Amino acid sequence: MFSIEQSIKDQFVAVANHISYPLFPENLYTPIQYINTLGGKRLRPLLLLLANDLFGGKIEQAMPAALAVEWFHNFTLMHDDIMDNAPMRRGNATVHVKWDTNTAILSGDVMLVKAYQFLQELHPTVLPQVFTLFNQTAVEVCEGQQLDMNFEHRNEVDVEEYLQMIRLKTSVLLAASLKMGAIIAGANSKDADLLYQVGENVGIAFQLQDDLLDVYGNPSQFGKQVGGDILANKKTFLLLQAQRRASLEQQKQIDYWLQKTSFEPLEKINAMVGLYEQLNIRAIVLEQINYYTNGALEALTAIDLPKSHKLRLEQLLFQLLVREH
Amino acid sequence: MFSIEQSIKDQFVAVANHISYPLFPENLYTPIQYINTLGGKRLRPLLLLLANDLFGGKIEQAMPAALAVEWFHNFTLMHDDIMDNAPMRRGNATVHVKWDTNTAILSGDVMLVKAYQFLQELHPTVLPQVFTLFNQTAVEVCEGQQLDMNFEHRNEVDVEEYLQMIRLKTSVLLAASLKMGAIIAGANSKDADLLYQVGENVGIAFQLQDDLLDVYGNPSQFGKQVGGDILANKKTFLLLQAQRRASLEQQKQIDYWLQKTSFEPLEKINAMVGLYEQLNIRAIVLEQINYYTNGALEALTAIDLPKSHKLRLEQLLFQLLVREH
Repeated sequence: MFSIEQSIKDQFVAVANHISYPLFPENLYTPIQYINTLGGKRLRPLLLLLANDLFGGKIEQAMPAALAVEWFHNFTLMHDDIMDNAPMRRGNATVHVKWDTNTAILSGDVMLVKAYQFLQELHPTVLPQVFTLFNQTAVEVCEGQQLDMNFEHRNEVDVEEYLQMIRLKTSVLLAASLKMGAIIAGANSKDADLLYQVGENVGIAFQLQDDLLDVYGNPSQFGKQVGGDILANKKTFLLLQAQRRASLEQQKQIDYWLQKTSFEPLEKINAMVGLYEQLNIRAIVLEQINYYTNGALEALTAIDLPKSHKLRLEQLLFQLLVREH
Repeated sequence: MFSIEQSIKDQFVAVANHISYPLFPENLYTPIQYINTLGGKRLRPLLLLLANDLFGGKIEQAMPAALAVEWFHNFTLMHDDIMDNAPMRRGNATVHVKWDTNTAILSGDVMLVKAYQFLQELHPTVLPQVFTLFNQTAVEVCEGQQLDMNFEHRNEVDVEEYLQMIRLKTSVLLAASLKMGAIIAGANSKDADLLYQVGENVGIAFQLQDDLLDVYGNPSQFGKQVGGDILANKKTFLLLQAQRRASLEQQKQIDYWLQKTSFEPLEKINAMVGLYEQLNIRAIVLEQINYYTNGALEALTAIDLPKSHKLRLEQLLFQLLVREH
């Protein structure tokens, strides 16, 4: 990443790092500062600011919305980590572990409100539209988290339900970030909607790729244990596709491994990957990733701007999708 | 309560009862419907709508903000009940007990977002000002809850700190509800600010009265066990005033009862009430209630409207403050 993206990201980080946190009550605001400084890719604000730039908007005018989506995203992480019982986030202790659950609940709440407080700074001509989109998206992200939690307690999940869940939990915020940037820059509604579709498709492709990388990623580059989802019986796109396509005999083997409580980790991973190979799951998932990637590209192409202007955004989005697998 | 207040409340309840909840994900929205239908006084939306009426506003234009403050208030109850480990709310099981903590966190989150979604419906000319006030208030309510939780773990709390806590936790939302109604009706900023002061003062007086009623209330009308705060070692205004005024000997007795883990409930209540009597705490608290009540009355008097127009709001507010003690 260089030039315009790096410059935009630097500007965002500079502004984000100069946000002053109230000193009192100290134990309400310290966890917010903590989670905000754990780093992360700053993907959502970057997409928002790039989209705004794409349509000739000024970065200062879009900055409040960029801060809002980043704070909103970090709010969801703080609350999701409680619900998912997650001990670590970006290599550090999660807020509910480092402090306690009550702190993570209340600091998360105030973070969500502060995200809205950034939106106050938007120009009144764009505020209603951005506000409406932000609200809609926030509701959907909560719905996605609810579906994700529900799936854990269910034996059967359809592939279609899974796609709906990842769309809500991941894609809509990427999509809305892009669209907000376009709205603030004064893009017409057709182009703004197309940009939303770009984000929606990229988000799904990205999430499917994440599932694929769990099995087929290069561990040194991927940064997670290969097969972690398999060991955790996580209902990934790979598992759901395998369950849909398995013969009775293969279904029995899948159930055997899902139900077995004591096993050699490597043996379980190898058995499941073996089943995935028999069922050609890798190719099926790659085909789906391709489908959504093409959907994103088509929407981007249809946006009424010279191709050369859209190149940077295209490159950034496809960097997300060309990881080591 | 009759005529205009009853009519406004009926209209609010009719609208609130016709809100349709999404059917899916069912376990995200059922708890919201549950807490919203537990009843309650609807005090905040009623104040908002009365203030709007006072300045000649149309009820339909203020209704979205009335729904927003009610949903926001119920969101805080849902999350506070988790943090306070409260089993019951308005005579029914709390959401985190009836469902579980994760449900109460996520349903609460989506409720907060939905409160903002109601604000979308406001006229764009009043949206920015109402939005800013709503955000500021929401942050303060969270700060108040944090202070309240912090006080539980502290040995010493100043009377001034306590007043700040109840101002944030209770008063600012009453005050903001009144001010939002005024803003939406097009009141000038001086009158809107005065109405805010009315709510701020009434809220503090109301909370101090609540502390007083724990000890001096008529149990059959008050609806709670007399002395409940004393048994729970709750840092009420009465206890903090007693600690400030106690002689060394009286301080020793207070500490004795605060630290004693095994006791006859009635004996502890009688001992503490005896100390309060020695220290004249009842008169001191009544004087403070009077002070804030007068503050509210002065602000109401200063509002540039005929006295007769303000009578209904005055009556409603002072109904809150003339309970059975």
